Amino acid sequence: MTPMIPAEDEVLKYFERFCNWGRWGDHDEKGTLNFITPEKRLQALRSVRSGVSISCAWPIVKESPVPDVRHPPLHFMLQSGETPGTVAALDFIGLVFHGHTITHVDALSHQFWQDKLYNNRPSSAVNTLQGATWGSVEAMKDGIFARGVLLDIPRLKGRPYLEAGEAVFPEDLDAAEKAQGVRITQGDALLLRTGWLERREKVGVYPEPPKRPGLHAAAIPWLYEREVSVVCADAAHDVTPSGYSKISLPIHMVGMTMMGLCLIDSCQLEDLANACEHQQQWDFLFVVAPLRWRYATGSPVSPLAIL
Amino acid sequence: MTPMIPAEDEVLKYFERFCNWGRWGDHDEKGTLNFITPEKRLQALRSVRSGVSISCAWPIVKESPVPDVRHPPLHFMLQSGETPGTVAALDFIGLVFHGHTITHVDALSHQFWQDKLYNNRPSSAVNTLQGATWGSVEAMKDGIFARGVLLDIPRLKGRPYLEAGEAVFPEDLDAAEKAQGVRITQGDALLLRTGWLERREKVGVYPEPPKRPGLHAAAIPWLYEREVSVVCADAAHDVTPSGYSKISLPIHMVGMTMMGLCLIDSCQLEDLANACEHQQQWDFLFVVAPLRWRYATGSPVSPLAIL
Amino acid sequence: MTPMIPAEDEVLKYFERFCNWGRWGDHDEKGTLNFITPEKRLQALRSVRSGVSISCAWPIVKESPVPDVRHPPLHFMLQSGETPGTVAALDFIGLVFHGHTITHVDALSHQFWQDKLYNNRPSSAVNTLQGATWGSVEAMKDGIFARGVLLDIPRLKGRPYLEAGEAVFPEDLDAAEKAQGVRITQGDALLLRTGWLERREKVGVYPEPPKRPGLHAAAIPWLYEREVSVVCADAAHDVTPSGYSKISLPIHMVGMTMMGLCLIDSCQLEDLANACEHQQQWDFLFVVAPLRWRYATGSPVSPLAIL
Amino acid sequence: MTPMIPAEDEVLKYFERFCNWGRWGDHDEKGTLNFITPEKRLQALRSVRSGVSISCAWPIVKESPVPDVRHPPLHFMLQSGETPGTVAALDFIGLVFHGHTITHVDALSHQFWQDKLYNNRPSSAVNTLQGATWGSVEAMKDGIFARGVLLDIPRLKGRPYLEAGEAVFPEDLDAAEKAQGVRITQGDALLLRTGWLERREKVGVYPEPPKRPGLHAAAIPWLYEREVSVVCADAAHDVTPSGYSKISLPIHMVGMTMMGLCLIDSCQLEDLANACEHQQQWDFLFVVAPLRWRYATGSPVSPLAIL
Repeated sequence: MTPMIPAEDEVLKYFERFCNWGRWGDHDEKGTLNFITPEKRLQALRSVRSGVSISCAWPIVKESPVPDVRHPPLHFMLQSGETPGTVAALDFIGLVFHGHTITHVDALSHQFWQDKLYNNRPSSAVNTLQGATWGSVEAMKDGIFARGVLLDIPRLKGRPYLEAGEAVFPEDLDAAEKAQGVRITQGDALLLRTGWLERREKVGVYPEPPKRPGLHAAAIPWLYEREVSVVCADAAHDVTPSGYSKISLPIHMVGMTMMGLCLIDSCQLEDLANACEHQQQWDFLFVVAPLRWRYATGSPVSPLAIL
Repeated sequence: MTPMIPAEDEVLKYFERFCNWGRWGDHDEKGTLNFITPEKRLQALRSVRSGVSISCAWPIVKESPVPDVRHPPLHFMLQSGETPGTVAALDFIGLVFHGHTITHVDALSHQFWQDKLYNNRPSSAVNTLQGATWGSVEAMKDGIFARGVLLDIPRLKGRPYLEAGEAVFPEDLDAAEKAQGVRITQGDALLLRTGWLERREKVGVYPEPPKRPGLHAAAIPWLYEREVSVVCADAAHDVTPSGYSKISLPIHMVGMTMMGLCLIDSCQLEDLANACEHQQQWDFLFVVAPLRWRYATGSPVSPLAIL
Repeated sequence: MTPMIPAEDEVLKYFERFCNWGRWGDHDEKGTLNFITPEKRLQALRSVRSGVSISCAWPIVKESPVPDVRHPPLHFMLQSGETPGTVAALDFIGLVFHGHTITHVDALSHQFWQDKLYNNRPSSAVNTLQGATWGSVEAMKDGIFARGVLLDIPRLKGRPYLEAGEAVFPEDLDAAEKAQGVRITQGDALLLRTGWLERREKVGVYPEPPKRPGLHAAAIPWLYEREVSVVCADAAHDVTPSGYSKISLPIHMVGMTMMGLCLIDSCQLEDLANACEHQQQWDFLFVVAPLRWRYATGSPVSPLAIL
Repeated sequence: MTPMIPAEDEVLKYFERFCNWGRWGDHDEKGTLNFITPEKRLQALRSVRSGVSISCAWPIVKESPVPDVRHPPLHFMLQSGETPGTVAALDFIGLVFHGHTITHVDALSHQFWQDKLYNNRPSSAVNTLQGATWGSVEAMKDGIFARGVLLDIPRLKGRPYLEAGEAVFPEDLDAAEKAQGVRITQGDALLLRTGWLERREKVGVYPEPPKRPGLHAAAIPWLYEREVSVVCADAAHDVTPSGYSKISLPIHMVGMTMMGLCLIDSCQLEDLANACEHQQQWDFLFVVAPLRWRYATGSPVSPLAIL
């Protein structure tokens, strides 16, 4: 199977072809999360079989096991159990996101294309003083509650993880669906396993210049046609480098900015992949509850899969 | 109905009578979350009827509408949409919890009683340098996924909110169950509405010295016998003052330290109360996904109710 | 004495008349600090008579005594003396400046006028990602070491402090010099006492809308002609409101942006005023050592006066 | 010359022999800074000859040039010059100290020995909730203003820098004084150049396990007898390893805890060393102005030498 690779001109046309601006109204800040209707939530419940719950988050640790973390998370104790007479602990936590170390959801204010956000808002709506005055993560306050489907690409390829810079094509997505006996339909969350962050924890840091496995731009029509609500990856979604000179991150740029696609980054999908294998079941209830942080362009999260 | 008020000696005996240390093994860090088995998760699904999802979190805002916030949340933009050529936003977020302004879950490392944590660990296991080396919120990484039941006490009393220092007794819990036609059983999450934080947003800050509505110590046997997994309140759980000289926060001190009871603080239950009233349905699927922050004594959360 | 109040058109001409762009070279980032030559430092030594040293800083405290502090300083202990076996303390400190609560120096990157910084640089040289790529406080790394002169305006007026919105005119500066028997000359630091922050600590917060005492725009020619190196005030320098519709902060806007005038904000001049009165000496050695924080637009400082 | 190396028993006796507890009163929090009287300040002025001012601080940078920085400084812009209509910049800065990357002064609350601070206070006076309730850096609010003497040990040894783990003995201090034609007397600040941090910037990070050049315990009597007010080093003062099993950091432990010796850490002495060489003058006026941060156990500083 040789994947079809679109020319750069073709990919540039995706910005128009796969544009959802206005689709859910001029004031919409939810994008593809609109696919998750109450009916879809009711359907999603039926994916649960054993009642096992699995976190798709990496632990947040002050002292990173890998040395390429530019902004280590902060955690300070204002009260600890060492003070005589203290009855409770008090913590300060702080972190920088996005980046590639904290499991987090991107709000639609995160990504810009030609000075625009999703739904034709100027990128300056994300300003230095206030943050995201439009498309903040608070738009997701009622959470993501959908049927999730894990497509396990290393399993498909018979390897523990994809290589740096290795692309995932729509043909791979189709093949994984076939191999696993599942099909992604409207409103579903796609959980894409590349094995990449697992590799990073075990084998070491990114090579320089950064090369990461991920979805090829060719997957954009597939995501659009399937009406996927969320793409949740254990890497950064986009294969890097993208192979195009003008579009460094097609999944982010077309997906988020034009389609309004919700992305969840830097997930830990190893535990889930093992559980899926064990139950021979690759769909499940998928729940994400972003912090209701007004004006933030995303949120750290611990996505849950209930099998 | 005159509620039975236990004497202080009686409440002091609760520390022994309602002790779950060792109940789920000597290494247990989950406490009453152990009531939520895979079977309970499957049962919880059946509480969903309409597929509507509601957040039980207050927005996290830099500029608090009320002036009694000692530690305003921090939110800084490292990259915003105002920089020419920038393609994505980057945020720093930071906050202090616990306190009474951020919707958050308490890990079992949060509360101490006589220099002990739940399951007979020394409170010094929560140390200044590292944080919670035992009972960290990471123990909750697979989330809370249970049947939730809202008991709406102001509704029962025919008032918009409870008053400062007003206690909720087990007799009130029974009466609310009866009025609403629900019953809390093993593994359920109790969502207790007092209307307090709603009042605070509308009417203004706490009176000084702090007086808050909440559960009376007399409710402890009720919580124990019903085998509640979680108590989620729109105040600080404990009525303040408690009415006892030696035990300032009985629900925290007996509940967390001895029973291993999971508490979720400072929730926003107004939207949920309205939805329940509208659907005439007071049970639902309740999902909480704490950040997987190793060594933290809790986590900000956005609890979700799916009706 | 009726002070001469310039018309707004006149003040707008100050931007050109008192412009020091290029005066010390096209690459200059020091502005009026250039007046402090090695010879001036040697002369400044002669102002010391008793060898008494006085801090002109307010304490930095987590819990502000006044409720109008939007960004309380952060101070967390990573290691304290409560941990058995710990041999040393470790702190995190953090703060927001500028504002009106932390004693701090403004670097020339702090103030913009019509999208320009001092010395004809674009204000966009202060960017969100990096900070001040030009005119950072690091330009002041060798410190301020000059003759300082305190002009004590409340003493001149026979009152404990100036009133909200009360302006200080060049006629007042001349009169204070005469009353105190001092004269400000090239390279000197002017320390201007209004009594304002002292009043704030004692009497309470600013009235709303903000009104503060400070220098009137009419003082700009005086500052320029005297070739003052630094203006250090116990308020925010500019009288507020300024009396002009187009120029809200003339001392900042003409002074910093055009003249390159170094400003030190929110000082505590009470201890110094008392010591000056006691010694009947209003000039002294004045030393400020900003943190060498690359890309910061200023620094918290503790200015020292050695009498 | 073979240096005299005291046995461990001898060094343990230093804790008693060189104890200044009570010397300046039971409430003293200044320790050896008490040597700097107004008269000493007047004398210190006479060390200034050319009026040249030099910073002894390293720049504080977000992105460290060396990879062993556990807590990179934080710098975020709340307002930058990129926002249309913004007239001023606003910054957040934050950092962890002590450690070996930020030029900082240690307050006497920083170091503990057998659960005691200087002047017989319990180390628990430095608590997690409040910080240093005794011996805070605020005790230094009036600054350090003294004669400084640079002893340039690599110059003495004819090498660019000392080696990892290389000790500086009192014999070296005497020899450097002789070679440079200076003598340290009561109240002077000793600036000790090892070339270590310079080496770190150029050659790379510390070897593991940490080995650093610095003063040998044998120098303690010398520091005591000379009545030095401050030791300011371009490394961490103490040679590491110390050569003693029970006392890892003798200069810190005897010096700070018993003598009340003021230490300034991680300085940049290269610029100063060059200026001294150029002027053939190794004494100067030395000024340090710590932030007046109540309850902090030290402060970042930019020490100034005026030659």
